[in-house]
Amino acid sequence: MTMPRLSHRARSMPASPIRRLAPLANAAREAGKKVYPLNIGQPDIPTPEAILGRMARFDAPNLAYGPSQGLPEFVEAVRVYQQRIGLPVETEDIFVTTGGSEALLFVFGAIADPGDEVIVFEPFYTNYNGFAGLVGVRSVPLQTRAEDGYHLPSEEEIEAAVGERTRAIVLCSPNNPTGTVYSREELQRVVSVCQRHGLFLVSDEVYREFTYDGLSHVSALEFDEIADRVIVTDSLSKRVSMCGARVGWIVCRNRQVMESVLKFGQARLCPPTLEQFLAAGLNEVPESYMRDVITEYEARRNVVVDALADVPGVLMRKPEGAFYLCPRVPVDDSQKFAEFLLRDFDVDGETVMIAPADGFYATEGLGRNELRIAYVLNRESMARSMEIFTRALAAYPGRTA
Amino acid sequence: MTMPRLSHRARSMPASPIRRLAPLANAAREAGKKVYPLNIGQPDIPTPEAILGRMARFDAPNLAYGPSQGLPEFVEAVRVYQQRIGLPVETEDIFVTTGGSEALLFVFGAIADPGDEVIVFEPFYTNYNGFAGLVGVRSVPLQTRAEDGYHLPSEEEIEAAVGERTRAIVLCSPNNPTGTVYSREELQRVVSVCQRHGLFLVSDEVYREFTYDGLSHVSALEFDEIADRVIVTDSLSKRVSMCGARVGWIVCRNRQVMESVLKFGQARLCPPTLEQFLAAGLNEVPESYMRDVITEYEARRNVVVDALADVPGVLMRKPEGAFYLCPRVPVDDSQKFAEFLLRDFDVDGETVMIAPADGFYATEGLGRNELRIAYVLNRESMARSMEIFTRALAAYPGRTA
Repeated sequence: MTMPRLSHRARSMPASPIRRLAPLANAAREAGKKVYPLNIGQPDIPTPEAILGRMARFDAPNLAYGPSQGLPEFVEAVRVYQQRIGLPVETEDIFVTTGGSEALLFVFGAIADPGDEVIVFEPFYTNYNGFAGLVGVRSVPLQTRAEDGYHLPSEEEIEAAVGERTRAIVLCSPNNPTGTVYSREELQRVVSVCQRHGLFLVSDEVYREFTYDGLSHVSALEFDEIADRVIVTDSLSKRVSMCGARVGWIVCRNRQVMESVLKFGQARLCPPTLEQFLAAGLNEVPESYMRDVITEYEARRNVVVDALADVPGVLMRKPEGAFYLCPRVPVDDSQKFAEFLLRDFDVDGETVMIAPADGFYATEGLGRNELRIAYVLNRESMARSMEIFTRALAAYPGRTA
Repeated sequence: MTMPRLSHRARSMPASPIRRLAPLANAAREAGKKVYPLNIGQPDIPTPEAILGRMARFDAPNLAYGPSQGLPEFVEAVRVYQQRIGLPVETEDIFVTTGGSEALLFVFGAIADPGDEVIVFEPFYTNYNGFAGLVGVRSVPLQTRAEDGYHLPSEEEIEAAVGERTRAIVLCSPNNPTGTVYSREELQRVVSVCQRHGLFLVSDEVYREFTYDGLSHVSALEFDEIADRVIVTDSLSKRVSMCGARVGWIVCRNRQVMESVLKFGQARLCPPTLEQFLAAGLNEVPESYMRDVITEYEARRNVVVDALADVPGVLMRKPEGAFYLCPRVPVDDSQKFAEFLLRDFDVDGETVMIAPADGFYATEGLGRNELRIAYVLNRESMARSMEIFTRALAAYPGRTA
């Protein structure tokens, strides 16, 4: 009897750096430790009443399939939202997905075949790798560096990475995991390369509103010269604190792309109905909600940055957006350090969970002295977390500096 | 400037036969026609109060991410359900997915690489093709026939289809789209071939409870000789009429498969939280609910079968389960007939929408004289639909018999 083997893609896919420590965290909690979860972008902010309160208005007798491209009332809410933020698109340019995750999966599936490549700037949102890997597409990394605040390489360097099988450049601004916000000029470099080489530009803009210090976000949709090859992936997860709702969307003005996405979308029938019904309240969320959320995150960021500023051996630039930062830290291996935090360390019974940065890199060996911190807890918890983190760094046997 | 092209997989993927007629149906409705939707397995039955009523008990401040493998309370509900139906499995044998759709996608991704093959019995659930295509896996069809009630081929014929790149045999019983329920002996043929050739057996059992005439379902989980290579995909969609909830799961006792599925699952973070919270009421659904649902579907089936029994040129066997049937009909092309129904035909302003069967076949040219009817409307509507359908058959210019 032959034992069946698994696929190469399954065997070669790394476990998520955001989630692979979950068993250790569970064990720490079972042992009575309090664990501050800084590993995942799971905000503690309440979902607005304008969204969650709609639950009381759901009166259908059953949870029926919706259209593959999204519930009409939610598609319309997205259209109005796009207009409100100054990035107007037509209804047919919008395709609702089961979270930003499915948006990325469908986009990669639509624009690239097995063996084709997409250029990503590392460190990058680790799950780009997951979705690309699932559909057999290779992520080709271009490195950005802590010293440069993780800003983009020069146009020449970007261009040099384009090969025969390159299908797209993927970027994320404000960036997960670095918190960097790309300037218009930086985006222009990518746009120019896409234009010259006939590439798609896949722009992950789920953190669009999350910019600090008066900076503002530049959308890929603002570059008319490549209007037909820009694909924006988006999600409500962070914006209105409904990560578990799995409501995202694709915006694209290329009809062929949207037809392909529709075919994939028809195969999976529809995104979750009830949560789209709730999300249709998007435009009734008061403007003060988003403003307060941003003010709160900026304050949380400041708590983290202030706490880490003078820690010997820690290198970082103040992040400009999203709610992550990626400090370089004086450890031999941030995976081991993360395990140490959960298994071997606590301050009065409390510890923190962080994401090792190696999983945010495609280049083997990079990121082992970096980690991602999500500042998604309130200021007091963030201050306490940073105190624990700093003391753990000092106590860690694998400290290198 | 080079125009970017789409992927081969996107271009070669056919539109869903269940959904591709949606624009014509919308146009018919806009023109004032009433359209009976028999194209899609969307039950009109209410979702049980034990599930939908839980909405009032959801009191979290936000819709947070859940674990990638599913909310613990829903995983436990699945475990109890599996025990209740006599197919007990451990908690770690269960992985919750965003509908049965995602279950299939992850399973194909875990067991097959681009260019690998899975054997399917055609006509088959059309979306197997979609998910296989998205991950670059080829569906190799083995034909079943209306004359045989769409029962499985002989063990020799199945074995002859196994090639060097075959990774799995995929089956669905009770079957979508044919309504056929495979006997233990039929399943044994497939099990034996899987055992001899080291293949996975992917068993789609979402219609498990939907059997009629005293027949009962045989699960792939009952075959101990291949316990480590059986992968069951499942979903609550049909069972408790919550298709739009996108709550499904994988059951598999092979640790490696489950570890791979977990990696794909971590990349997409989690299935919808709120709808899992509702679905956790699964075991509080009174037994009478399911019994009444089955009785109702059996009666609906009888309405359809009686209506079509004497229609000249229509060939079918009484379906034994699920809520579909796939009659052979005397038309030149069931796609054209479906378009005719929506565009050119009505009885007193009413018409029906059906799914052409060609999309349920992988073999080019097959299924053009067959179609799928979902008997998901109440008896009166089904009777009326069959009257319209029969009159349309008589009036259709492309009639062949």
